[in-house]
Amino acid sequence: MENPKSDFSQWYNEIIELAELTDKRYPIKGMNVWMPYGFSLMRNIDETIRRRFYQDEFKEVMFPALISREMFEVEFEHIKGFEKELYWITKGGKESLEDDLAMRPTSEAAIYPMFKLWIRDHADLPMRIFQIVQVWRYETKHTRPFIRSRDIHFIECHTAHETFEDAESQMEIYRREWKEFTDALCIPYMEVERPEWDKFPGAMYTRAFDTVIPSGRTLQIGTIHQYGQNFSKNYDVKFADEKGEAQFVHQTTFGISERLVADIISIHGDNKGLILPPSVAPYQVVIVSIPGKEETVESFALDVKKNLETMGIRVILDSRNNYTPGYKYNYWEMKGVPLRIEIGEREVKENKVTVATRTGKKKEPLPVADLNKINDLLDSVSEELMSRSNNILKDALEGKVLGDIEDAVRTPILCYDEACARKMEEKLSLFMMGHIMNIGKEGKCEVCGKDGRTSLFSRPY
Amino acid sequence: MENPKSDFSQWYNEIIELAELTDKRYPIKGMNVWMPYGFSLMRNIDETIRRRFYQDEFKEVMFPALISREMFEVEFEHIKGFEKELYWITKGGKESLEDDLAMRPTSEAAIYPMFKLWIRDHADLPMRIFQIVQVWRYETKHTRPFIRSRDIHFIECHTAHETFEDAESQMEIYRREWKEFTDALCIPYMEVERPEWDKFPGAMYTRAFDTVIPSGRTLQIGTIHQYGQNFSKNYDVKFADEKGEAQFVHQTTFGISERLVADIISIHGDNKGLILPPSVAPYQVVIVSIPGKEETVESFALDVKKNLETMGIRVILDSRNNYTPGYKYNYWEMKGVPLRIEIGEREVKENKVTVATRTGKKKEPLPVADLNKINDLLDSVSEELMSRSNNILKDALEGKVLGDIEDAVRTPILCYDEACARKMEEKLSLFMMGHIMNIGKEGKCEVCGKDGRTSLFSRPY
Repeated sequence: MENPKSDFSQWYNEIIELAELTDKRYPIKGMNVWMPYGFSLMRNIDETIRRRFYQDEFKEVMFPALISREMFEVEFEHIKGFEKELYWITKGGKESLEDDLAMRPTSEAAIYPMFKLWIRDHADLPMRIFQIVQVWRYETKHTRPFIRSRDIHFIECHTAHETFEDAESQMEIYRREWKEFTDALCIPYMEVERPEWDKFPGAMYTRAFDTVIPSGRTLQIGTIHQYGQNFSKNYDVKFADEKGEAQFVHQTTFGISERLVADIISIHGDNKGLILPPSVAPYQVVIVSIPGKEETVESFALDVKKNLETMGIRVILDSRNNYTPGYKYNYWEMKGVPLRIEIGEREVKENKVTVATRTGKKKEPLPVADLNKINDLLDSVSEELMSRSNNILKDALEGKVLGDIEDAVRTPILCYDEACARKMEEKLSLFMMGHIMNIGKEGKCEVCGKDGRTSLFSRPY
Repeated sequence: MENPKSDFSQWYNEIIELAELTDKRYPIKGMNVWMPYGFSLMRNIDETIRRRFYQDEFKEVMFPALISREMFEVEFEHIKGFEKELYWITKGGKESLEDDLAMRPTSEAAIYPMFKLWIRDHADLPMRIFQIVQVWRYETKHTRPFIRSRDIHFIECHTAHETFEDAESQMEIYRREWKEFTDALCIPYMEVERPEWDKFPGAMYTRAFDTVIPSGRTLQIGTIHQYGQNFSKNYDVKFADEKGEAQFVHQTTFGISERLVADIISIHGDNKGLILPPSVAPYQVVIVSIPGKEETVESFALDVKKNLETMGIRVILDSRNNYTPGYKYNYWEMKGVPLRIEIGEREVKENKVTVATRTGKKKEPLPVADLNKINDLLDSVSEELMSRSNNILKDALEGKVLGDIEDAVRTPILCYDEACARKMEEKLSLFMMGHIMNIGKEGKCEVCGKDGRTSLFSRPY
């Protein structure tokens, strides 16, 4: 396998196929099949997010996949932002439909007509819902599994609040959620305020979570949006305040997509294949049993497996005897399992196991009595992944060459004028992604000298 | 609230709205919003099924929602069975698509082109996959939430095998799964072999799981299908057998839909509202705290809650003090929570709780030290529900009046000729659903006197 840094595209295409994450041979272009291993990874991510949202008093719902033209075409910039990407259903059976139906590209137009019915009174607020669904976008750009597809796994939060300040506090909650959540995936990010001309259609402002992957390009993996009253005024979502007066609600959203999987693959992978963060890996531990003359190896391995399962660890035992241990080591390394346990006759005799982490170079013995140290070893893999991915981001921000692209990421200080951004875009031949809010500093604009802040210029996917 | 048996339709419409299971005011007819409480119930059902399928070595996948006309129109009776129900996408953005895309009504046409790629060799078999997804059907009949909708929550298994016998063993596994699974939902069923003219389009034979609900009508909530080689020959799904010769695989499917929710609502509900089976109830226990002069009630209630959570019980504490205890009892009874715990000053003083099951009439004291008996009480609710629903089915099979419909269900012995079935349909003004395989007996056809078996005649949804 190639080193991901030398030819990223080839490496990426090869590993998603080899590791059986997805099958892109599905007969419709840009729509791929989630294979069991890939889907398990996505589901673990979903469950991690779901748990956190439940804790923050979000309620889970599921809206229909279709939105009528009438619901969509509330006169408003939102529809214009999606016009070119909508799949339109015009026929049911052999009949033409009276009202064309669009497949949701995101669910504002589906949800807010119901918010209008659900929200009556300040006691109904804050309202916080989320759903984990597929969305569909008729992408005309080059598609690529998990990065840009036409049938997209999507997690979306929608909230409504009495005041702008309440909505801003919700944005803070999203930020905290995102930090803790991406920490679990060992992925560092930039929080970037998208410029006016690139914010979500209809939003007051958009903060995107951008990452740099080893191709040298940036990948947006999540966004939070402050809608203010833009949507509520268009969808007529009002509540009676304490004086009984009708007010429009303030709204926010949080969108997270399957691009997280792309990030995990790209940022953590190496020339042996995937490396999956222990928090979401389908299997956190693989036990490779090495059959000998005695039959005790298999039952010993099964005991170790049960032991780990009792500890809540996701574990698989590979006892295939038509493959050599070496083949199996390579196979599970390629699949990105964070920790491998080897069990042969010697281990059985000495009542221990041999342990190797996917990020380390050494093998170590571990007495069976100390199996609970597996959790520490998994933590050490997470720490190592976080440290490596922090370095990738740091290198990118320092302008070092990533992948095969020179000048991939630049971070000049810029003011807030479009003119200066456009000049810099031309100079760098990169796109202005916005000002970086969680990294960088205030300073004077490199173009005009006015007050500004560190900004991100890159080639985004 | 009405008694479900006196006016079923009114009762059903009222309870799904009151209990906030779904919102049918979504602006597209026949497509409804899963509200948090209803979605939690559906998700608990999904998880129960998912665990079982994992145990039986099914792999979970997710296929794209769209199927091209070309994939669908493999010349074959399958497409004809769905022709009138397909939603067709003809436009992407403002462009007309080159190949129209259908939203999946079920996934044979999506999955089998991939089976053709995945299955090469007998070592690849058996192949067992499942997915939990939405499917869409352009229903022209009267829609009704959870019973007949246009955006349907669907669980589908697809398997491929070397021989017909292997595929038949898979059908046995489905049967065992179904029995254990519906036992957990406290729902008895008839396994009915659909007649030739009513089997799934493309199947060799279809066994449906039919239930009787208190309206007097029957509701099919699951189906298993033996496809034999019908699909594999049309989709060209072959494997090399041990001699290296190409053979078509034998296939089966298992389909389960959101109708399970309809069944749970209808069969278990009473004039107070829902009664949810403990195995899937969003909350198995509600604690109603009755505030007194002392503040100890609340902290005592919280301790009890934590205690139950540690036992793995899903529990909610209702400490709203703007509602009377009586209001709260009625509210949670309506929501169908299987078990209620009341905690007031007396309970705190005596270090006990007061317990009432949703199916029982008495309240009982339970010392805090005996809280682990809650599991037994939940089991007793399940047993009571199973006993009640067995009686509904028994009454129906004995021809007693259910709901407001007389002669709702009849079970004459019939042979296997269509002519006899049609004559009986005319006589009874009911539909022939097929021969009942798990109940009833062999005997002589009531029409022609030939060999036959107990059959089901009803008005299905």
